[in-house]
Amino acid sequence: MLTDPALADLRSLFGARVSISTAVLTEHAQSESLIAAGLPDAVVFPRDTDEVASLARWSTRHLVPLIGWGAGTSLEGHALALNGGVVVDFRDMAQMLEVRPEDRLVRVQPGITREALNQALRTTGLMFPVDPGANASLGGMAATRASGTTAVRYGTMRDNVRGLVVVLADGTIIRTGSCAPKSSAGYDLTALFVGSEGTLGLITELTLRLHGQPEAVMTAVAGFPGVTEAVDCVIATMQMGLSPARIELLDTETVAACNAFSGLTLPLTPQLLVEFHGHPEGLAEDIRRFRDLAAGFGAADLQWAERTEDRSRLWAARHSAYRAILASRPGAKAVVTDVCVPISALAVAVDETRADIAASGIPGPILGHVGDGNFHAILLVRPEVASEVATAKALAARMADRSLRLGGTITGEHGVGFGKLVHMAAEHGAGWQVMGTLKRALDPLGLMNPGKVVPV
Amino acid sequence: MLTDPALADLRSLFGARVSISTAVLTEHAQSESLIAAGLPDAVVFPRDTDEVASLARWSTRHLVPLIGWGAGTSLEGHALALNGGVVVDFRDMAQMLEVRPEDRLVRVQPGITREALNQALRTTGLMFPVDPGANASLGGMAATRASGTTAVRYGTMRDNVRGLVVVLADGTIIRTGSCAPKSSAGYDLTALFVGSEGTLGLITELTLRLHGQPEAVMTAVAGFPGVTEAVDCVIATMQMGLSPARIELLDTETVAACNAFSGLTLPLTPQLLVEFHGHPEGLAEDIRRFRDLAAGFGAADLQWAERTEDRSRLWAARHSAYRAILASRPGAKAVVTDVCVPISALAVAVDETRADIAASGIPGPILGHVGDGNFHAILLVRPEVASEVATAKALAARMADRSLRLGGTITGEHGVGFGKLVHMAAEHGAGWQVMGTLKRALDPLGLMNPGKVVPV
Repeated sequence: MLTDPALADLRSLFGARVSISTAVLTEHAQSESLIAAGLPDAVVFPRDTDEVASLARWSTRHLVPLIGWGAGTSLEGHALALNGGVVVDFRDMAQMLEVRPEDRLVRVQPGITREALNQALRTTGLMFPVDPGANASLGGMAATRASGTTAVRYGTMRDNVRGLVVVLADGTIIRTGSCAPKSSAGYDLTALFVGSEGTLGLITELTLRLHGQPEAVMTAVAGFPGVTEAVDCVIATMQMGLSPARIELLDTETVAACNAFSGLTLPLTPQLLVEFHGHPEGLAEDIRRFRDLAAGFGAADLQWAERTEDRSRLWAARHSAYRAILASRPGAKAVVTDVCVPISALAVAVDETRADIAASGIPGPILGHVGDGNFHAILLVRPEVASEVATAKALAARMADRSLRLGGTITGEHGVGFGKLVHMAAEHGAGWQVMGTLKRALDPLGLMNPGKVVPV
Repeated sequence: MLTDPALADLRSLFGARVSISTAVLTEHAQSESLIAAGLPDAVVFPRDTDEVASLARWSTRHLVPLIGWGAGTSLEGHALALNGGVVVDFRDMAQMLEVRPEDRLVRVQPGITREALNQALRTTGLMFPVDPGANASLGGMAATRASGTTAVRYGTMRDNVRGLVVVLADGTIIRTGSCAPKSSAGYDLTALFVGSEGTLGLITELTLRLHGQPEAVMTAVAGFPGVTEAVDCVIATMQMGLSPARIELLDTETVAACNAFSGLTLPLTPQLLVEFHGHPEGLAEDIRRFRDLAAGFGAADLQWAERTEDRSRLWAARHSAYRAILASRPGAKAVVTDVCVPISALAVAVDETRADIAASGIPGPILGHVGDGNFHAILLVRPEVASEVATAKALAARMADRSLRLGGTITGEHGVGFGKLVHMAAEHGAGWQVMGTLKRALDPLGLMNPGKVVPV
């Protein structure tokens, strides 16, 4: 609850950069999830770390929760004010602060999006590869430990955040990590905050690893007789030690949706989109090996997208797959699932999931970053039909259970937010209580994004 | 203090696997550091996780500290009982429990050493690459976030531990991580315990990432006119995006020591030992590029060690460098330093360090994992000459300060233990207090390896 004195105090700090207009509050109560949440009490647009620290001290004085907001693209209600509070929108903290090309590092503010960052980097020969599809903010990507299509080669946010500036619940500002490539100097605070979803502190600056723009890139599409063959090809690819930069599965339903939405003409069979990065000599061999492998699993001739524009078109279609699938059932909303299993269990996990979805009567195209064992079923429901929503939620819960049974995780890259909270005890057992202990130690008043990640 | 009732209780749990013999206590009061510590009160040899949990409950009942012990190879007094307590020696928990070749994972007990693990894996086509030189235990390597020669390509323990079983101070057993390649399911507890040096809990099981044994390996030695040229060659190699599996600097003094100790005949100039892993086609191109680069920095003809036995001989010599350097000054003990700086600062860091050592009159050969910006000066002192010890400690302190000034860290891979505690505030500022907060949250009685890592 935002009392009048609290609001007055907030305005004394942020002036016109506090908003309580219904339009702004409503915009910050939206999410890609089906989770219903009321409006936040206010939205604040800080300009620097010190302002965020003053906001944290304000929050402590008035016992009002703070909820970080990047690009609003998260999928489990991470940035929703479940029971009021102030949303901290990092829109005005979206600068690239410093590039260190020799160290392959960049220092950024949390509000910058990955597309804006790569645009700013384009003349440096370097890139930030982590690519969750949505044009998410880097602060949000770190907070949810995001990954996406390129994690199979370049790693996730866990691997690509070198250091952070974090504002803690009491307004303390800490710097984690350093510009050195590695360190053994005490607890890995960087890793603790990456994936903490704003529940332990607010990230106000990130030092990120960059990678060289690849000298050569080859992208191919391979159609398989069935999903099983495509998945088996992925497993063999990874086990052979080939190192694709991306290896994505689209099932037939996803292919159909992408064709319709993005004007592709892919054959209506399960497809793998695969990309290799390297120097031309090494790449030729990678490609030869992958082609032979794929043929062994019944793939039709690989179509190579040699020109940059053909590659861009394919990956743009892949990135639009979520919207393409939504468009395939007009009026539908999506329950987006996100399991990740050991590679050895990938075929079983996908097969069982497909059978379960088929029996449910709900459309549920499957796609995913299968080189990591990570896949999504996009369960399409009419939100006004309670039975469909219930069926989809039951399917999603069974996917999470199945993933755990197979040695996997309930979320490969989307995070916990509010949506996955119900599965955390099953995944972590006593470890979930430990997360709660850490939360209470750093945020004893429970003001940082309450209701997410840890036991309530 | 181990009271009689506490000892009786301990014996009721562990029988003859409790030792208070002077020989055993003395053996567990040794370290590779100059840190003086008294004897522990007892040494216990548990056999499984449940026994470690019962030990933690015993520790809580009697308020006696527990200090984990792997192979005793740590360099900052990590495993010393600074003020008494029970050393938990994992000698009897040294099994490889399960290999999952399809997932490239292995499950091990903490006492297994890296050489024993790789020996056990040799028929699988897989390997565990992290190589700190010493034949350390995997539990100790995880606890100190170790790395070594191969981290430049394969990463450190941070990157290669997929999950842990940990016994907390109160005896709670938690499992962190999963067998999935990635996860966004809450706080990264695995990363919190990796590098926590036994101060938050005792690691009783590890799930480790494996890597394919490389199809082809090429190792070369390149002599340079000076250290500066060698370092500049490393910087250029990394910035070009070449991905050596190892790239090690030995300065002239180190080369002389290795020649004498290991019977090598390397020219007495600074040398880079470099190794590439890959498939033959890609490797040929890597080698061509590295050779051209090295020539540009004045390297003499590269000597390629094509045969396995030549490679083994070279790397054995590199791994013996520490002992070789010790042997170069009979009766000396070493103050081993371990800084890690951004690559862009490596040449300055090495140059300033060499000048500082030269002015000190203390021998201090330099070697290191320079592809990561990580290097060591082995400062050789006569332990009975107080002025030498003081000079070496002052040099080491200036190295740590210099590293921080250049954006680096006080320890790249050896960890904090007791030896580096004095520099933690300078590196982490308020973040060090946060580490203390986390410690108190998980170990409120301060029984897990007290006196290490966090503020006392």
